[in-house]
Amino acid sequence: MSKGKLVVISGFSGAGKGTIVKQLIERYGYSLSVSATTRAPREGEVDGKDYYFKTTDEFLSLVDYNGLIEWTKYVDNYYGTPRKFVEEELSAGKTVILEIEVKGAANIKEQYPDAVLLFLTTKDVDTLRARLRKRGTETDEVIEKRIKRAAEESELMDNYDYIVVNDELEECIDTVHSIIISDSYKTENMAEFIKSIQTDLSDE
Amino acid sequence: MSKGKLVVISGFSGAGKGTIVKQLIERYGYSLSVSATTRAPREGEVDGKDYYFKTTDEFLSLVDYNGLIEWTKYVDNYYGTPRKFVEEELSAGKTVILEIEVKGAANIKEQYPDAVLLFLTTKDVDTLRARLRKRGTETDEVIEKRIKRAAEESELMDNYDYIVVNDELEECIDTVHSIIISDSYKTENMAEFIKSIQTDLSDE
Repeated sequence: MSKGKLVVISGFSGAGKGTIVKQLIERYGYSLSVSATTRAPREGEVDGKDYYFKTTDEFLSLVDYNGLIEWTKYVDNYYGTPRKFVEEELSAGKTVILEIEVKGAANIKEQYPDAVLLFLTTKDVDTLRARLRKRGTETDEVIEKRIKRAAEESELMDNYDYIVVNDELEECIDTVHSIIISDSYKTENMAEFIKSIQTDLSDE
Repeated sequence: MSKGKLVVISGFSGAGKGTIVKQLIERYGYSLSVSATTRAPREGEVDGKDYYFKTTDEFLSLVDYNGLIEWTKYVDNYYGTPRKFVEEELSAGKTVILEIEVKGAANIKEQYPDAVLLFLTTKDVDTLRARLRKRGTETDEVIEKRIKRAAEESELMDNYDYIVVNDELEECIDTVHSIIISDSYKTENMAEFIKSIQTDLSDE
C-alpha cells in the first residue's frame, strides 16, 4: 500500500483527455507526468508544464541514458516519459497520471504490470467528429486524419483495463476517480494486508 | 450494459456489513436480495425484510424446486438466496446486493462469473473485537466464537475480487460504491461497446 499507483490515460483525440486529466489533478491532487517531446511548442504551451521541449539530440541522449520509461516516434516527432519524476512520485506513494498514446501505454504496462490503463472515448463516432469540429482550430482534412487515427487506436482498446465513455463530463471525472480508488482494493493489491490479518486471526 | 450487476458482500461479523449495505441501498437505490432462513426471527426482525422465515420443510421444498441460487447450512440452520427476485432484478438492469457468507459467495461466483465479490474487514483483529464488544449484546464466549469463525473465513478472502477495510464508515461506503461503478467499465464488460465503435470507425 505504501507504493504509489501509475494511471495511464489514453483515448481518441477529441474524447476530452486533457480536460479530464486537468480536473483530476486539480480536484484530487494526483501527480501529472509531463512528457518530453521534440515537436515545436504550440502557441501558449509552456516548457516543463505542457511538455519538456527538447532538441532531437537532447531527446536521443535521454533515451541513451535510460532516462525515459517509454518513448515513441509519432509522425516526425519523438515523445517520451521521463523516468525520474515517475519513479520519485511512486516511491513517495503518489498516484501518477500519464496521458500517453496507445503504443506508449502498452510499453508502460510491460514495465509496470500494476499500472491501471484507462481508455477514454466518446459514445460514438458522430460525437467524436462533432467535438473535433467544435474546437474550431482544425481543418476538415485534419479532423478526418484524426478519425482515421482513432480507427487504428481502437484496435488496441482491448489492451486497456477500463474503457470510459466521456458522455457527461462530471460523471466521467467521477468514474475515472472511482476506477483509481477501487484499484487499490483489488484482492491482488491487498495481498500483504490479507496475509497479515490471516496471521493475526490464526494467532488468537 | 443492459443486464444488471450482482454484488456480493461478505465479511467478518463486526466489520459493519449491515450498516454499509443499508446505506448503499438508501443512497444509491441498489436492490437488496433478502435471504430465506430456517432460523427463528430475532427480536424486531421482520419477515420479508430481514429474512424470509421458513420452516425446514418449506426451505427444502424451495431447494427441490430450484428456487434458490445458493444455500448452505450454518450451525443448525439453513440459509439461501431466492432465485426469482435476483433474476428479475438483473433482467431489469438493476444492481442487486447479496449479503452472504463465504461459502454462499463462492457458489454465486460459480453461477454468475460476472458477479463482483467484496469482502469487508476491520483494519485489524483488535478493532474487530472492540466492535463486537461495543454491540454489548454478546457474551465474551460468543465474541471469541465469532473471532474463531473470522479466522476460518479469512482463509477464503482470496476468492473475493475486492477487500475493503471499514475503518471510517463514510469512506468505506464511498469505496464500495466506487468499486460497483468502476466494475461496469472494465474492458471485459465493455466488449460490446468496443466492437461497435471499432466497426463504426472502420466504416468511416
